[in-house]
Formats: sequence, structure tokens, C-alpha cells
Amino acid sequence: MTETTTTGTSGISPEQRAVEQQLVDTVIASFDGAKDERLKQLMQSLTKHLHNFIREVRLTEDEWNKGIEFLTAAGHITDDKRQEFILLSDVLGASMQTIAVNNEAVGDATEATVFGPFFTEDAPEIPIGGDIAGGAAGQPCWVEGTVKDTAGKPVPNARIEVWEADDDGFYDVQYTDGRVAGRAHLYSDGNGNYSFWGLTPTPYPIPHDGPVGKMLEATGRSPVRASHLHFMVTAQNLRTLVTHIFVEGDPQIEIGDSVFGVKDSLIKKFDQQPAGTPTPDGRDLGNQTWARTRFDIVLAPAET
Amino acid sequence: MTETTTTGTSGISPEQRAVEQQLVDTVIASFDGAKDERLKQLMQSLTKHLHNFIREVRLTEDEWNKGIEFLTAAGHITDDKRQEFILLSDVLGASMQTIAVNNEAVGDATEATVFGPFFTEDAPEIPIGGDIAGGAAGQPCWVEGTVKDTAGKPVPNARIEVWEADDDGFYDVQYTDGRVAGRAHLYSDGNGNYSFWGLTPTPYPIPHDGPVGKMLEATGRSPVRASHLHFMVTAQNLRTLVTHIFVEGDPQIEIGDSVFGVKDSLIKKFDQQPAGTPTPDGRDLGNQTWARTRFDIVLAPAET
Repeated sequence: MTETTTTGTSGISPEQRAVEQQLVDTVIASFDGAKDERLKQLMQSLTKHLHNFIREVRLTEDEWNKGIEFLTAAGHITDDKRQEFILLSDVLGASMQTIAVNNEAVGDATEATVFGPFFTEDAPEIPIGGDIAGGAAGQPCWVEGTVKDTAGKPVPNARIEVWEADDDGFYDVQYTDGRVAGRAHLYSDGNGNYSFWGLTPTPYPIPHDGPVGKMLEATGRSPVRASHLHFMVTAQNLRTLVTHIFVEGDPQIEIGDSVFGVKDSLIKKFDQQPAGTPTPDGRDLGNQTWARTRFDIVLAPAET
Repeated sequence: MTETTTTGTSGISPEQRAVEQQLVDTVIASFDGAKDERLKQLMQSLTKHLHNFIREVRLTEDEWNKGIEFLTAAGHITDDKRQEFILLSDVLGASMQTIAVNNEAVGDATEATVFGPFFTEDAPEIPIGGDIAGGAAGQPCWVEGTVKDTAGKPVPNARIEVWEADDDGFYDVQYTDGRVAGRAHLYSDGNGNYSFWGLTPTPYPIPHDGPVGKMLEATGRSPVRASHLHFMVTAQNLRTLVTHIFVEGDPQIEIGDSVFGVKDSLIKKFDQQPAGTPTPDGRDLGNQTWARTRFDIVLAPAET
């Protein structure tokens, strides 16, 4: 059992503790009548941990006010294009923890990581070996691999969604001109193989001009995400995988990814190729350098 | 020590637990560089308890999404007149717990309760025995008492702010016509005595047409507050008291005050007076019934 001790309350009298505990118990009991058992469990647990926090830190009324102001500012900056509450969840590791509790390791299945706010449903389809860039700036990067299940059997026709920022650190949806770039989907072939041209990922900050950015600054944290390329892989009877690959040697991995998405197994070697090096598919890149990486994907069985 | 055990994780493998714990530890460590020690403590404790919640309930990704949607809706309904995050804090008992940890009992000092969102700075001054109604509808109620310190010494010239809803359950600021009604301030006399005409408090729901109201409905909870009259009492060298008095016999006290503000010591007898009963100050109320109550106030010493 993981145990948490409410510390910082050692100078509190038994009478005061009883007052505080009685309040928690009353709030928890107020949810006893909830007909939805799961909702009841969620609200009662949330209440318990929220009160543990307040009691442990002996939250002052001024700090409570600042908390209300923070949430209010986060609500007001949030719109169709900006989601400050997801950012907040991300930088507190809550998004990653939710993924962790829902994606227990199964054999050698590829690990999951955060979904992020930049996926779109309508990315274009490309053939195997196609280019996802759609005009996005960056160093061309050949990505290839095989999709298998945990029994080692190749998975044909797996749908592979990939998306990434350009080398200015922006996703297409962050521009106002409606471009679709740096994203596509493709399907693995009959042997589970896939390949495409993407861009070598570069580091970029999460949007940090709002309350979450202020909190990161006040606590001395970097808003920068480690360089990564997003994947979502779906196939019949297998668990959907939402993940990234990261770039070996990216210094931000040591500094700390701002949303805690890095897992060692997801750090891949991106081999830099001098200009003129022949490409796998004969594509002529002129005098551009390029990179290549391999990402073999193992999908867990679907939940039964 | 108050101990909380992370339950609901008994079926989790040691490997999975280690993955989850490592993530918590990494997030907590990310705040190590914060220069403000108190801010560091707050963020690290918040992180710990937030992750405890997610791990204990095994929060699903769908539930996480619903949480984000809830916070977003709360942010969008919040404006200068409506504060959904304060309501949320109130109905989770977080406001009351913050008051509890900041207002430890001192001798027989009067207990504090929630401030609520309806105080205004500019309520009119009335003389002792004056009327706070300002045209607000409701049964006249004579309120009197003495302000003392914990040594039993009367406190002259204490500033007493009082405010309350009308008998439709609305505070003046909830109307759009700019009225000032059901609120005033007065000062205790040389013997610490005070008295005024208010309105007999009636129950009313907190604003429940937003996400907080939906949550209360989904969990079978009443949005109604027990009938109450607000007080804020300030005096030199004494701790400011923010409290209410509640009406003995109000059935909502048993059902449960929606913001957990009730304390036994704050429940007062409101004596109903038949029409024609002579009033304490000779005021002619015609054929109206009226009520009277007594609230003796004891102020704790200011923090030193």
C-alpha cells in the first residue's frame, strides 16, 4: 500500500484536528446519496485528497484566494484553440499519471505517453513512404518500422496517425491560415511495415503566456518540451497506442520535459545524414542534410 | 498524525506501482528549484495529493476528459458577478476547511464560517437600532448582542458588518437594478452592545444553473444553504471574525447546508413574535409578525 502521511500538522491540537476531520467526514458523507457509485467514489476521493492538501500545507486564506484567481484566469484564457486546464494537468504530471494508470505494461508492448492538444481528426492519408510535411519547415527525416502484437506477429493495415511541430516549434493548428502540415495518417502493409518522410523533431515551449506559464516561471521550471514526434496507432482487437518518440541526445531530456512525457524506451536514435547521402526511396533532397530513425511498435491486446 | 492510505490499488503490480511512483517523484522534484520556499511546498504537496487521487480511483481517460470539460465550463460561466470556482470550493468544503485551519478555537471566541461571495465594501452605516433592510422584503427581525474579548471585557466601537438575502433568496447584488438592501454596518456602543433590525433569514439555493449545480444534482445533493445572517466583526488588536448565525429549527440544517457552514454554536433561537407584540425600540410594525434573536460575539486576540 502506498501511504501518505499528512505532515505539517504536528503542532495542531487534538481538538483542532477533530474539528478538521469532522468537516472532511461531513463533506464525504454528503455524497453518500449519489446513485452513480463510480461518481460517488470519485467525489469522495477527490474531497479526501483536496482536504488532505489544505490541512497539510495549512493553506492561508490569501493562498486560497490566489488559487481561485489562478483557476479564473485559466478559465478565461481557455477557448476553442487554447486549453489552459489541459496544460495545467500536463505540467503537474496529472495527464501522464492518468495515462500510466490506464496503460499498464503488457509484455513488451510499446509504452504510451501524453496525447497533447494538437491532434486533429482530419489529417490527410499518405501512402507508405509518403511525406507528412505538407510544406512545414524542417529537416527531412525518414521514419520506418514494423507494427507487431505482443506475440510477435506483424499487424497489417494498422492505422498510424503521426503529427509534429515545424522547426519554429508550432503545429499547423497554431497558425491562423488554416494550413494542414506536419500531420498525416497511413496504414502498415501486409507485413506490418510502415515508413514515411517527416521532419526531425525540435524542442518547443508549451504555450506559456498564461497562468500556467507564470506558475512555471515562478517555480523555476522550463516550459520546453523535449523534441518529439507523435504517434497514435489503432488496429483491430489491439489496444490503441498513443505515444511519441524522442530524440536521443536532446538536452531537454536531461533538463526535463515540461509535461513529463519522456520514457527511456521511447528515446530513439535519429541518425544524421550528410547532404548527398542516398535516400531509402531515391528521393532527391539536393544539398539538404536529412535524418533517419526506426520505431518498431508493439501493440498490447485490447482490454477484454 | 492523520494518515491516508491509497486504497483501490491492491490489484496493482509492484512494477506498475513503481512506474507511477517514479512519475510522482519526478514531478515533485521538478519544483525543487523554486526560490520561494512556500510556493515550492504548496506545489509539491498539491502534486502529491493530486496524484494520490488519480492513482487511488484509477482515473480513466474519459473521466479525465470530463474533469477538463467541467473546469472549462466553470471558467466560462465565471465573470465579475458569478464565481463558479468559489462555489466549487464551497460545495467541496474546501472554503470551510481553509477557514478551519486559519481560525483555531481560542477560549470561547465565536466560531468563524464561510465568507461567501456577496459581501460588498460599501454598505451604508446605520446607527445602533437602525434598519439594514433598505427595502428588502422579509419578516422584520430584531438582532441584539454584546461584543466582548476572550477575557470577557466588552469591546466598544467594534465595526459590525451584516448582510443577508431577501425572502426571495437573493442578495441585492444579484439584482441588476443597483439596489443596496439587506446590508449595513454599525458600531458597538461604549459597553460593547449593538442592535439592529434585519430580516428573519430564509433558505436559498446557491447559483445552481452551472457545472457546480449539475454536479450537485448528479450526486443527489441539495444546493440549498441553511438560513443565515452574515457578520464580519473587526476591532483593534482583535482577530477579525467572519461568521453567520443560523436559525434553530431550520430543516435545511438537518438536510445539510450546501457549503458546510453550519456550526452548532452558531445556531440561534429566533423567537417569533405575534403581530402587535411591542417592539424593543417602540417601532410600529402594524399587523406584521416579527422575530428577535440574540448573538453575543466573542473576539479572539489578533495573531501576534
